[in-house]
Amino acid sequence: MTLRVNSEMETQPFNFDIVARDGEARAGILNTRRGVIETPVFMPVGTAGTVKGMRFEELESDDLDARIILGNTYHLWLRPGIETIKASGGLHKFIGWDRALLTDSGGFQVWSLGALRKISEEGTEFRSHIDGALCFLSPEISMEIQAVLGAEIAMAFDECAPGEATQEEARRSMELTLRWAKRSRDAFEQLQSLAARDGGEPQVGMPALPARQALFGIVQGASHQDLRSESLERTVEIGFDGYAIGGLSVGEKKPLMFEVIEHIAPRMPPDKPRYLMGVGTPEDLVEAVARGVDMFDCVLPTRNGRTGQALTSVGKLNIKNARYALDQRPLDEACQCLVCRRHSRAFLRHLYLSGEMLASILLTHHNLAFFLDTMRRVRQAIRSCQFAKFRREFTEQLSSGLGQDCV
Amino acid sequence: MTLRVNSEMETQPFNFDIVARDGEARAGILNTRRGVIETPVFMPVGTAGTVKGMRFEELESDDLDARIILGNTYHLWLRPGIETIKASGGLHKFIGWDRALLTDSGGFQVWSLGALRKISEEGTEFRSHIDGALCFLSPEISMEIQAVLGAEIAMAFDECAPGEATQEEARRSMELTLRWAKRSRDAFEQLQSLAARDGGEPQVGMPALPARQALFGIVQGASHQDLRSESLERTVEIGFDGYAIGGLSVGEKKPLMFEVIEHIAPRMPPDKPRYLMGVGTPEDLVEAVARGVDMFDCVLPTRNGRTGQALTSVGKLNIKNARYALDQRPLDEACQCLVCRRHSRAFLRHLYLSGEMLASILLTHHNLAFFLDTMRRVRQAIRSCQFAKFRREFTEQLSSGLGQDCV
Repeated sequence: MTLRVNSEMETQPFNFDIVARDGEARAGILNTRRGVIETPVFMPVGTAGTVKGMRFEELESDDLDARIILGNTYHLWLRPGIETIKASGGLHKFIGWDRALLTDSGGFQVWSLGALRKISEEGTEFRSHIDGALCFLSPEISMEIQAVLGAEIAMAFDECAPGEATQEEARRSMELTLRWAKRSRDAFEQLQSLAARDGGEPQVGMPALPARQALFGIVQGASHQDLRSESLERTVEIGFDGYAIGGLSVGEKKPLMFEVIEHIAPRMPPDKPRYLMGVGTPEDLVEAVARGVDMFDCVLPTRNGRTGQALTSVGKLNIKNARYALDQRPLDEACQCLVCRRHSRAFLRHLYLSGEMLASILLTHHNLAFFLDTMRRVRQAIRSCQFAKFRREFTEQLSSGLGQDCV
Repeated sequence: MTLRVNSEMETQPFNFDIVARDGEARAGILNTRRGVIETPVFMPVGTAGTVKGMRFEELESDDLDARIILGNTYHLWLRPGIETIKASGGLHKFIGWDRALLTDSGGFQVWSLGALRKISEEGTEFRSHIDGALCFLSPEISMEIQAVLGAEIAMAFDECAPGEATQEEARRSMELTLRWAKRSRDAFEQLQSLAARDGGEPQVGMPALPARQALFGIVQGASHQDLRSESLERTVEIGFDGYAIGGLSVGEKKPLMFEVIEHIAPRMPPDKPRYLMGVGTPEDLVEAVARGVDMFDCVLPTRNGRTGQALTSVGKLNIKNARYALDQRPLDEACQCLVCRRHSRAFLRHLYLSGEMLASILLTHHNLAFFLDTMRRVRQAIRSCQFAKFRREFTEQLSSGLGQDCV
């Protein structure tokens, strides 16, 4: 599929239109300076500037056709460091990717360090996971780094509360996230206007900004619906180009996760993209779409690919399983990806057991193909008002076959 | 480039024609049932059924266009095991590769095990490098395994002598290799005729053979020219479809290696392909072509790719080197491969230091592109009688630039 260029793009580098609805589910078009993204969309995760094991040509191929991938502020800041990326002219040029990027703010990654970090009003002090060096990240620093990275979408710097956080803990965390959201927005606006004023030329000591970015705010509040509502309302007051649901898939039970999504997604601004961070399985994606979510990212297809798990239309398949030793069938008989068209389970199992890189490469490719194709089918179903039927059949099929293989 | 189909292929599945000469250098056409191979040719090594880190689509792409790759009897026999490959219908179908294959006999790999193997007249007893199990390989067993693998070219089961072997040691080893060569040829002929008689259908307890294979004999004799001559003469007496120079690049000094090649290659049957096993660097390849060699395999481009070394037209480049941290240039400014067209040294260094799989993938791709492109240029130079000029310029350029980066 060719990337269409929107005529308004030059003056309005980021806009979002809903083109179809089916119940709470929405199909939309996100226009960015670097191409059109149809939603609901799954964004492969490229933490350190690479979607692990995947060449960029493959991500661009018709087989996958990923329109937007993620980069991570925390990881890229520590390595290779922001000066290296600045020298290349931003993350797109550094990695050689001309399509859209979204950068996470580093808030979640720093929070994940647990005992290795100390959170204060100003920001978060932490030890680098690479060399133990003492580092400090704040809303302002995160915005500066993200301006250098130059993704089409940047994220506010937030703090995450654990899934089982009490009302009190969750409120304290939410209030901090709101103050950081305001600081993120202010620092972001200042950077954008500096860039605009100088036509994209870097200031002395300031990052280069090739064009205006979009900034998303993040709704927190753990599993407390009243806090989620308040967080949403006050985040929208600050004002962002899109809104994310953070702090899910962090240890809470799955029904609770869907309660939060069902409560909060339909209350989010209808004309802005809704992004559910770090979620999830193929069924999670479809269920979240049914509740009004537009954007997703998750390491599941890439990480599980590296550990020998294929995600298929009939459930999970653990390629290590002895039952596949002589199995001439593709990973997924319903899949048309390059891997399923060419290679047998027997060969993929051999590659995996032999510790061959190609096992990770091919399983990751198939998993991404399955996720991206599922989202294509989701969009098509919404556009043709067949989403409820699609959702039912998809879920039934997923639990029909290979469930016994779950790792 | 499209693979041409030779009209004689059905009846004559393997033939070789010299189409140009320039000094001792020869350009030829090797017709196989699975496509045309222009020589001199470099064969990427796919030991365990995969050229490490490379997808088969990439090997087939115009960027690389590898016409033949190697598989290894020893490795594939131990894992996944011959029953697995038989169940798939041979190695081509097992791995999903429709172009030509050459399988090594396992002789060299078993010899390389050192203290773990015991050589007798009958064959070699050894411990598996995977699980320590006691195994036994002989000319007859190697031929049976290679018949199941079904490569276009199989190799005789040989014994290798160390580079510094005395005359006595080298003679003993050469005599054994000659007896094994005869047994290899006899077992091979029996298997081929069985296959032919049954139209390719597998016998009870016998391997399936899709079509007649070619068998190459291997010339040994360490660094002793008289033994090399005798080995060649007596191997040719037994009669093979092609002849290989074995036992080089096993610890002997490089000038000695070239003395052996210079002595033996021009004496090899002029109408049969000449294959120099396990050699070498790009300059080695060009120098061996100048002495009349047609075929090469080596793990150098793949193995060095995984350890961060790029082979370029101006010498070796160690991507770990700090000098490349901000270097926006491609690995090789003279290279037109996908990696050099898309990615900077700075990014490749970042990937390597981050332990990202993509570093190995991209460096391997570039290295293979450089080897395969060099051979394309070699063939063109021979056909236009410009090989001497090409050789001089290639060698001069190689030593011009990045030599200080050698690892």
